[in-house]
Amino acid sequence: MLNGDNDKFLLGGWESISERRRLMVADKDYAIATLGSHSALQILKGARDEGFKTIAVSVRDHSFIYRHFNVADKIIEIPSYNEFLKAEDELLKENAILVPHASLVAYMDADIINGIRVPYYGNRKILSWESDRNKQREWLERAGLNVPRLYESPEEIDRLCIVKFQGAKGGQGYFLARDEDEFIRKIGSAKDFVIQEYIVGVPVYVHYFYSVIRDELELMGFDRRYESNVDAISRLPADLQSDLKITYTIVGNIPLVLRESLLPKVFDIGHRVVEVSKEICSPGLFGPFCLETVVTSELRFYVFEISARIVAGTNVFMEGSPYANLKHGKSMSTGRRIAIEIKEAIQQDRLREVLG
Amino acid sequence: MLNGDNDKFLLGGWESISERRRLMVADKDYAIATLGSHSALQILKGARDEGFKTIAVSVRDHSFIYRHFNVADKIIEIPSYNEFLKAEDELLKENAILVPHASLVAYMDADIINGIRVPYYGNRKILSWESDRNKQREWLERAGLNVPRLYESPEEIDRLCIVKFQGAKGGQGYFLARDEDEFIRKIGSAKDFVIQEYIVGVPVYVHYFYSVIRDELELMGFDRRYESNVDAISRLPADLQSDLKITYTIVGNIPLVLRESLLPKVFDIGHRVVEVSKEICSPGLFGPFCLETVVTSELRFYVFEISARIVAGTNVFMEGSPYANLKHGKSMSTGRRIAIEIKEAIQQDRLREVLG
Amino acid sequence: MLNGDNDKFLLGGWESISERRRLMVADKDYAIATLGSHSALQILKGARDEGFKTIAVSVRDHSFIYRHFNVADKIIEIPSYNEFLKAEDELLKENAILVPHASLVAYMDADIINGIRVPYYGNRKILSWESDRNKQREWLERAGLNVPRLYESPEEIDRLCIVKFQGAKGGQGYFLARDEDEFIRKIGSAKDFVIQEYIVGVPVYVHYFYSVIRDELELMGFDRRYESNVDAISRLPADLQSDLKITYTIVGNIPLVLRESLLPKVFDIGHRVVEVSKEICSPGLFGPFCLETVVTSELRFYVFEISARIVAGTNVFMEGSPYANLKHGKSMSTGRRIAIEIKEAIQQDRLREVLG
Repeated sequence: MLNGDNDKFLLGGWESISERRRLMVADKDYAIATLGSHSALQILKGARDEGFKTIAVSVRDHSFIYRHFNVADKIIEIPSYNEFLKAEDELLKENAILVPHASLVAYMDADIINGIRVPYYGNRKILSWESDRNKQREWLERAGLNVPRLYESPEEIDRLCIVKFQGAKGGQGYFLARDEDEFIRKIGSAKDFVIQEYIVGVPVYVHYFYSVIRDELELMGFDRRYESNVDAISRLPADLQSDLKITYTIVGNIPLVLRESLLPKVFDIGHRVVEVSKEICSPGLFGPFCLETVVTSELRFYVFEISARIVAGTNVFMEGSPYANLKHGKSMSTGRRIAIEIKEAIQQDRLREVLG
Repeated sequence: MLNGDNDKFLLGGWESISERRRLMVADKDYAIATLGSHSALQILKGARDEGFKTIAVSVRDHSFIYRHFNVADKIIEIPSYNEFLKAEDELLKENAILVPHASLVAYMDADIINGIRVPYYGNRKILSWESDRNKQREWLERAGLNVPRLYESPEEIDRLCIVKFQGAKGGQGYFLARDEDEFIRKIGSAKDFVIQEYIVGVPVYVHYFYSVIRDELELMGFDRRYESNVDAISRLPADLQSDLKITYTIVGNIPLVLRESLLPKVFDIGHRVVEVSKEICSPGLFGPFCLETVVTSELRFYVFEISARIVAGTNVFMEGSPYANLKHGKSMSTGRRIAIEIKEAIQQDRLREVLG
Repeated sequence: MLNGDNDKFLLGGWESISERRRLMVADKDYAIATLGSHSALQILKGARDEGFKTIAVSVRDHSFIYRHFNVADKIIEIPSYNEFLKAEDELLKENAILVPHASLVAYMDADIINGIRVPYYGNRKILSWESDRNKQREWLERAGLNVPRLYESPEEIDRLCIVKFQGAKGGQGYFLARDEDEFIRKIGSAKDFVIQEYIVGVPVYVHYFYSVIRDELELMGFDRRYESNVDAISRLPADLQSDLKITYTIVGNIPLVLRESLLPKVFDIGHRVVEVSKEICSPGLFGPFCLETVVTSELRFYVFEISARIVAGTNVFMEGSPYANLKHGKSMSTGRRIAIEIKEAIQQDRLREVLG
């Protein structure tokens, strides 16, 4: 029944969203849907905990996971991630709100994401700020954060650098270089890279949730990634390590807590990122996001990347981190926090504020 | 009163187990017993949570642990692990079902284990497949898993290898060698070793539970081991590291989660291992088991060992991992999962299916 | 109304404490207060869970943290940590019991701490044994624990050593040296250092709670610290590592469990430390404390430091570790355990036994 409105939704403007909202309010029953990967278990579990109907859109090979854990009231199978749009009509019929995550963003072109007609939780416009390293850097710098230096070209390399590739495919192919020669030796035929100063310090991934409905920034937890082979080479004798190419493929995540005296700084940098986002990309960044930091021995946070949606590191806290559970007085995953936000938005007739 | 049946149980055949079962069903009251070490806290706690009477069989020096944590309704003290059989009559009298773990298997000879008359949870016959590296390798290869190459003799060493010793005594004495010379220099007078290709990647221990009663494979969680000194040498400057002999003594465990997109693969390799076990050692592997893997930067799982019972890494999830709690909708340790399996077996009059 | 007793409290003797207690018992309503840092979240949350009124004394910049997490019934703002005493009158009026932590001890001079008139949870006299490395060493040696060798002067250095500085400021500035030359090269103008043998093994921080009221030692959990840059250098190629100065600035903590077979040893060393403390500094060490150990590949625990109060590592278990939750049958952080101890002391009219 929503199909007739497709053209409006494709415009992506506020009018069409307002229209869509009105239609949905008449419906009363909402579903929360996500792509079956990344953090879908906690998103769907959290949605169900808050009373939503849940839908997993999954490639055929992976759908048994969502059946096994019984988190989805409905599973829509698609032949491949590229064909997500095949699930759209059914999602619209089910009155679904789509919760995006990094896999969804990684597997689909920006054009396709922008064209998704299913109500989309979060601000889609932030994607262009996030996916362009220069814009992301501008954002972080305007927020007054410490960022690693970014090099325009290999000949500028004057200290240890890390070379990264676009996309969110889990750090594959990243390498270190100390000068132009080393860069050239290692880059091969790769394109679409960025050269970043390598900051020596421990990696800390900070999970935030900025609630539009409550106008409050929350701390959802911390993790560090578990990466292959960089977290394995230290288990080799030093003489063997030098033979190896270091890689940064994300395999999993390990839970962390931070010194309590660092929490004020953690909140401060989160607030700054949100505030600047409102200026550069109204209504700004909201919902879950992550600052990927390195903390130096002087306890300075260097922010080397921002993820403008739920990160997989929150999976270590599927039952809530110490911080989130303390704040909410009950088990609170980031997935569940999203569901609460959407529920409160619906209850307060403010759903359009959390869609974008 | 079961004492008169000792001879039958020593036969270890299905007839005697069937007999034993009938006797027990008449009794109605079962106890769950284990050796006081390894994962006994969660096994006993889980059993009590499910309504069983619990018994710890413990060496005198360690029994205060099980008293302190109040997980055992009864503690049977034995002078040493070798004298486990001294507890047998009492265990039989208490109608106990013995839940084995790696310490039990490590501390007792296979002959003694095979001769245990107390009903034994799990398939004892799997032990011969597990303890013989060649048979274990055959098993894993038939399951189509990636396994590190195994070298028949030191002169074959053509790449980085790790040399391991038989038994489950926590990785003590393992060493690395790149060629025959290094092997000879390091092996000393040691015997009973295996030479395995060293796969570079992050260690991931996958905890499974295969339920015979529900005919379903469950994922109980992931950990990585915390080993001395291999997890400490990275804290030394590189020039100091080369002076050190790397050792792999297990001290503890650290919780992990894995990328959700790897879960289908994780279930797949678990299923394969169970299916092949049915062919090689009917009725096959059931209950808790662990695949000890290394995940490479290409996200390939290499399985370098299988533990055919509960592993100590499950202790990081004494209150349940995110995955197990999601599946069961409540706090679910591997210890508790075992108790549920045994309870359902009793309720469905299928106890013989989970004993072996 | 307690102000008139200030002089008595400054004497710090038992008479004055007895006096204070009587006054308080008349009052009936107690508050638990702590300095807003370190482990204040769990201390205040735990106190509230046990029915206490809670007070955070916080510098202005940090007080929003305690408001955000809603753990404090009252927040007393002070301009700087040095001016803690400005909060005293209000704390006395509120009938507060002060729970100290490492930040409180680090930020205030011993004289100030000794002069605090607010009832102080724990034995203040232990501070002099803890802060003097020679006395701490005497304590640990009398308890029969393995301790790293301590060097009186740089010329004695005959193996790998770590040079540490006094105070609890999070490991900043520590360095390694193999001989006198390296020591001189690295020490610069620093004073007030100790030279300790560097034990190769994995760091394990053991959290204990010794209950005076129940006369029982409890295990609260284990963690390992997450330190910058020492836990980051392993992510660099070996050739790059050598250029770096290793630092040990604590950034956070990672949860651990230990092999269950090590628990008897863990309890044993904890007991020994408590027993000796009764001799050297009556009534001895009580409440939460931590042994900072390194576990070697022979599974020997070397104790390199003792913290005579709650450590930040307990923050990984704000909802309780597997061990504490097992012991208590409910979620039990160290913060909550402190509150239970104080509550039972009040109920049994034994409050003076937990103050010092």
